[in-house]
Amino acid sequence: MNYLDNFKNVIADYRTRIDERLSSYLTEETNLISYVNMNGKYPSSLYEPLNHIMSGGGKRIRPLILVLSCETFGGKFEGAVDAAVAVEILHNFTLVHDDIMDNANTRRGKETIHKKWDVSTAILVGDELIGLSYRSLLKTRSRRIDDVVRSFTDGVIEVCEGQAFDKEFETDDNVSMNDYFLMIKKKTAELIRISSVIGSIIADASSEDIKGISTYSQNLGFAFQIQDDLLDVIAVESEFGKKIGGDIHEKKKTYLYLKALELCGNDERKRLIKLYSSNDLRNDTTGDIIDIYMRSGAVESAKAEIKSFTDKANESLSRLKTEDAKHRLRSFSDMLLNRGY
Amino acid sequence: MNYLDNFKNVIADYRTRIDERLSSYLTEETNLISYVNMNGKYPSSLYEPLNHIMSGGGKRIRPLILVLSCETFGGKFEGAVDAAVAVEILHNFTLVHDDIMDNANTRRGKETIHKKWDVSTAILVGDELIGLSYRSLLKTRSRRIDDVVRSFTDGVIEVCEGQAFDKEFETDDNVSMNDYFLMIKKKTAELIRISSVIGSIIADASSEDIKGISTYSQNLGFAFQIQDDLLDVIAVESEFGKKIGGDIHEKKKTYLYLKALELCGNDERKRLIKLYSSNDLRNDTTGDIIDIYMRSGAVESAKAEIKSFTDKANESLSRLKTEDAKHRLRSFSDMLLNRGY
Repeated sequence: MNYLDNFKNVIADYRTRIDERLSSYLTEETNLISYVNMNGKYPSSLYEPLNHIMSGGGKRIRPLILVLSCETFGGKFEGAVDAAVAVEILHNFTLVHDDIMDNANTRRGKETIHKKWDVSTAILVGDELIGLSYRSLLKTRSRRIDDVVRSFTDGVIEVCEGQAFDKEFETDDNVSMNDYFLMIKKKTAELIRISSVIGSIIADASSEDIKGISTYSQNLGFAFQIQDDLLDVIAVESEFGKKIGGDIHEKKKTYLYLKALELCGNDERKRLIKLYSSNDLRNDTTGDIIDIYMRSGAVESAKAEIKSFTDKANESLSRLKTEDAKHRLRSFSDMLLNRGY
Repeated sequence: MNYLDNFKNVIADYRTRIDERLSSYLTEETNLISYVNMNGKYPSSLYEPLNHIMSGGGKRIRPLILVLSCETFGGKFEGAVDAAVAVEILHNFTLVHDDIMDNANTRRGKETIHKKWDVSTAILVGDELIGLSYRSLLKTRSRRIDDVVRSFTDGVIEVCEGQAFDKEFETDDNVSMNDYFLMIKKKTAELIRISSVIGSIIADASSEDIKGISTYSQNLGFAFQIQDDLLDVIAVESEFGKKIGGDIHEKKKTYLYLKALELCGNDERKRLIKLYSSNDLRNDTTGDIIDIYMRSGAVESAKAEIKSFTDKANESLSRLKTEDAKHRLRSFSDMLLNRGY
């Protein structure tokens, strides 16, 4: 078995163990059985939808990068797993609330909470997930627990700002590529970066080491989001778990849209702007828009950008002392880069 | 000047200093000026509504009780004020999200965020307030900062469960008085109790002392919520800051409703149930319902209950070592008990 296959097994094993911990934690916190002594009352309107969405699986990128970062600096899986569960729960909070704002009907192949129940329920489930994420985080034993919680809190604030930009940009016709990168930094890259920072703090890494791995994970985060934009138009729907063209329907200013505007000739650019603004459920022009993305070279450009950010991430690993850690993190980038979902 | 008047001045002074800290913290975190270097971009869709709602004032019960509890065990105002700001911000998060779920149009005499802007904006502002509350909390210097954050997180989770029960009860015809007390414990009393616990931890109080002040603040929390239920029907609207009869419109299972069901004769009970279920904006029967609350003795009973919980709170102070601390906390209970808003 070659290195990458072996590494994939390690990751699969970690994913299983993270899922197990997540599942046992949620059982303990939210299952009916824990509430039998509470006046016979159980807030099922909160915990049934919460468990519905949390049982939907996920790629577990953030917890994995947290654990790998911890190990990179000599920490152990077991010491990092509660924090890993915390970043995964926090990520799920953002999904639940973003899905309301983005009118998304499905997530990981399941109905979203606000669709299956209602908006109030989805708001409350998201809020509760924030609370549960901090509670799991606080199980972590670290003499720098205050730094751990501070970084985590930075993550909460950054994703909110990122989501605000994302929504603002939907109705803003002057979004630049710079603006886009600011938005995805906050909305996506920061939580991935912070996951690696938290793992490193748990391993008691030096500030220089943390700086290095921050560069790695932030670049990976950029690559990851551009790939998400790309998958929104080229993925296979059953694997992607959400509707193809969702970004187009919500008039998101994605990498592809902004890049196509840059690359198109004048006439095609006008046509794209018109198609994008008129696109809705009654008048579906998603296919035409994707054609322009292909023809203009925006899709190719996205692929090159993903490759470039991944390379940048891998380059920042050069300062790492152990070859094994470098290997692992490089393999992790490769895995992410080659995902189809 | 008598003791109570003097104490009122102390509280007014604390309130001013808490407001100043809250205001300077929010300016630092959310004002345009802090964002000039950020690509020229400022998430105004997030921070304008956030500052709109946060400039609406408030009674500052939770931060005051936090600071008073800290001082009770020898801590200083300055060491507790960042945590005090944190519990106030956290409280405001619950208001913003609850107002969406409860369809409230006004809060503290101002339009609610989801009315003035939209639901997405209000969701995001609430989320951001959680992040900002933790960030302020983490400015606290305490060797037991992990316990501080853990208690705070318990508060987040408890209010979510309380809100879930509150919403469930709207459509549940079998809510008992026991259920009601479980709900208001989680929705209101816990965050007040936890505020006093956090203040005490910052002062490095013993676990026995913390237990004592917990009993005080939790009972105060119960008194406070029953009074809130009462004010919903008897307050002067301009002082109350929200619409009179709001609980009735939302079919909340309040103390008054449940108590009136208990106290009424059979016919009147049936009439109340019918009025309550048929009450809406087209068919406003709020006045008739309030009449039943008065006639049945439910209003008198609420007043007696408020008095009883306040007495219980004050009794739990007997173990406190310093007379001055007892005096202050008793005066605080009296102030709360006699509020008209």
